[in-house]
Amino acid sequence: MFQRHPSNPLIRPEAVQPSDAAFEVIGAFNAGAILFGDETILLVRVAERPVAADAPAEVVLLPSMDSRGGLSVRRIRRNDPDYDSADSRFVIHRPTGNLFLTSISHIRLARSSDGVQFQIDRQPWLRPTTPDESFGIEDARVVQIENRYYINFTAVSPRGIATGLASTQDFASVERHGIIFPPANRDVTIFPGRVNGQYACYHRPMPGMFGGYNMWLAQSPDLLHWGQHRVVLTAQPNAWESGRVGGGAPPIWTERGWLTIYHAADRRDRYCLGAFLSPHDDPAEIIARASEPIFEPQAAYETEGFFGNVVFTCGTVVQGDRLRLYYGAADETVALAEASLTDVLDALG
Amino acid sequence: MFQRHPSNPLIRPEAVQPSDAAFEVIGAFNAGAILFGDETILLVRVAERPVAADAPAEVVLLPSMDSRGGLSVRRIRRNDPDYDSADSRFVIHRPTGNLFLTSISHIRLARSSDGVQFQIDRQPWLRPTTPDESFGIEDARVVQIENRYYINFTAVSPRGIATGLASTQDFASVERHGIIFPPANRDVTIFPGRVNGQYACYHRPMPGMFGGYNMWLAQSPDLLHWGQHRVVLTAQPNAWESGRVGGGAPPIWTERGWLTIYHAADRRDRYCLGAFLSPHDDPAEIIARASEPIFEPQAAYETEGFFGNVVFTCGTVVQGDRLRLYYGAADETVALAEASLTDVLDALG
Repeated sequence: MFQRHPSNPLIRPEAVQPSDAAFEVIGAFNAGAILFGDETILLVRVAERPVAADAPAEVVLLPSMDSRGGLSVRRIRRNDPDYDSADSRFVIHRPTGNLFLTSISHIRLARSSDGVQFQIDRQPWLRPTTPDESFGIEDARVVQIENRYYINFTAVSPRGIATGLASTQDFASVERHGIIFPPANRDVTIFPGRVNGQYACYHRPMPGMFGGYNMWLAQSPDLLHWGQHRVVLTAQPNAWESGRVGGGAPPIWTERGWLTIYHAADRRDRYCLGAFLSPHDDPAEIIARASEPIFEPQAAYETEGFFGNVVFTCGTVVQGDRLRLYYGAADETVALAEASLTDVLDALG
Repeated sequence: MFQRHPSNPLIRPEAVQPSDAAFEVIGAFNAGAILFGDETILLVRVAERPVAADAPAEVVLLPSMDSRGGLSVRRIRRNDPDYDSADSRFVIHRPTGNLFLTSISHIRLARSSDGVQFQIDRQPWLRPTTPDESFGIEDARVVQIENRYYINFTAVSPRGIATGLASTQDFASVERHGIIFPPANRDVTIFPGRVNGQYACYHRPMPGMFGGYNMWLAQSPDLLHWGQHRVVLTAQPNAWESGRVGGGAPPIWTERGWLTIYHAADRRDRYCLGAFLSPHDDPAEIIARASEPIFEPQAAYETEGFFGNVVFTCGTVVQGDRLRLYYGAADETVALAEASLTDVLDALG
């Protein structure tokens, strides 16, 4: 159904200028996507780590933003029994349970006239600035609502994983709107317009002591305050979505209803994409759902990399019947796959 | 500073009629409290478990509400290696991480003309009815806002631990307003009126993969949709509040500012009460805080019981300078302690 673009991956970390000479870019992935005038704009998550040239291989560097907005780097030995560094994305301090990330992310703009060849900004567009963001800003999604573009992103800090909101009219200046979902919540996808008079989004709380990784609907009068929380989709018996489900790209208005492309992971953290359809007037209801993944890791740049066996989307661009799916591959690169929107809808059964 | 009432505990489980002949009441605790006309009304959390008369001692019964609103009881053997039943409050299914409660709670009204001797309703006032509540409804807090009384409560289910809202004008009929904080979030305390034109509350997200048990402030235009989330208080270096902090009773307006009595636990789950003061116009700020607990488990009915070493408040009643602190003792009974409001404020330093 989806065809990978022959130029994949479209954006590799090597093509991205570090935000600071002390950093190297290790990931450029999970990009929000939108048409702005004649351009396709990607809001790329750029993950950086301190340049390790002076550090022996057995040392892990753990970057974070300090209280003055500067960079702080914690150094630990990989074989230190107090630390668990088995996952490439983070390190856990066993005595306290505290977690530290091995990279720190910001959001970078990339622009293209054909949606394939992108010019990448040399500087961050949204960078960590508040105590809620000291471990970075990740996974931006963007929607146009009236004449503004709203960007939600994951704000990570020792306080937890939360969701922040920002907006722009021109993709130059940007206004911050604070935290819209407190920890632990990510993968928020805002609908591009009101549904029954209210703004709406899907969000994905992460369980505390217990509970599932489920997709919830919330509604809002103003995009800032959210309520009326209802479960929409829970992890499914199918192996490919038995671990967790959560938002992917913002929902797409189609004549048949709202098309939602979401992410799902199995219990081994293999990430695929699923899709479901909701009535125009009730996004809490699912009227059709694909029983198999609509897209799954197969290409080498998806199965291998910083965190292999991951395809993860934060945004699509629809023009006529052409659906362009921008996705992060292996938590490392931005790639593109294309499909007929009609084919995707027909596949929902 | 606080004097325990000589009639403590005011309400014991034995005094509460079970909601169903198949149940026995094992806890009556963590009561919201409010003055309603000449009466003090408590919204008591009543915890029940299936009558175990027919079950051998090595069997644990795990109650929940099924999809038709009936009671479902799972039976497991205490020595089954697939289950961890070390905590009296819950059992964990090791292979899946799924958790089951050993009791199911609802909210029961108790009324008193003197605030000490209570008449307990014979039936539940708020009982689990939705899939978000299938493990029960817990820890109600109540505030008066204009001519309505708003009750928030913890809604527990396999989906997680969330916060629901209801309201009443007469403590007879009650209206439901859905989920206001999705999982994992509890210990919500709503301010009794607007602050700078907006409703406000403290809430306590529970960490997902990581993060702290911190108190956050949120604001709302309508009590249903919440946003502008900001951290107010994090766990402190003092041993008594090093594990977690979270809302206790709804904030109290005083001439010196908002007085908040919160709960804090150490790393061994010993629960005390702390207090802080915030400016009238900015409840995200703390201008004074007690460095020691203002109340801690000492009496036998606090140190021993269903879950010992716990004092936990969901509500106070203030008349003149007299502060009546209703609190749950050992997750089992309702008790009362009284103090001079001035003394409490003076203790904040």
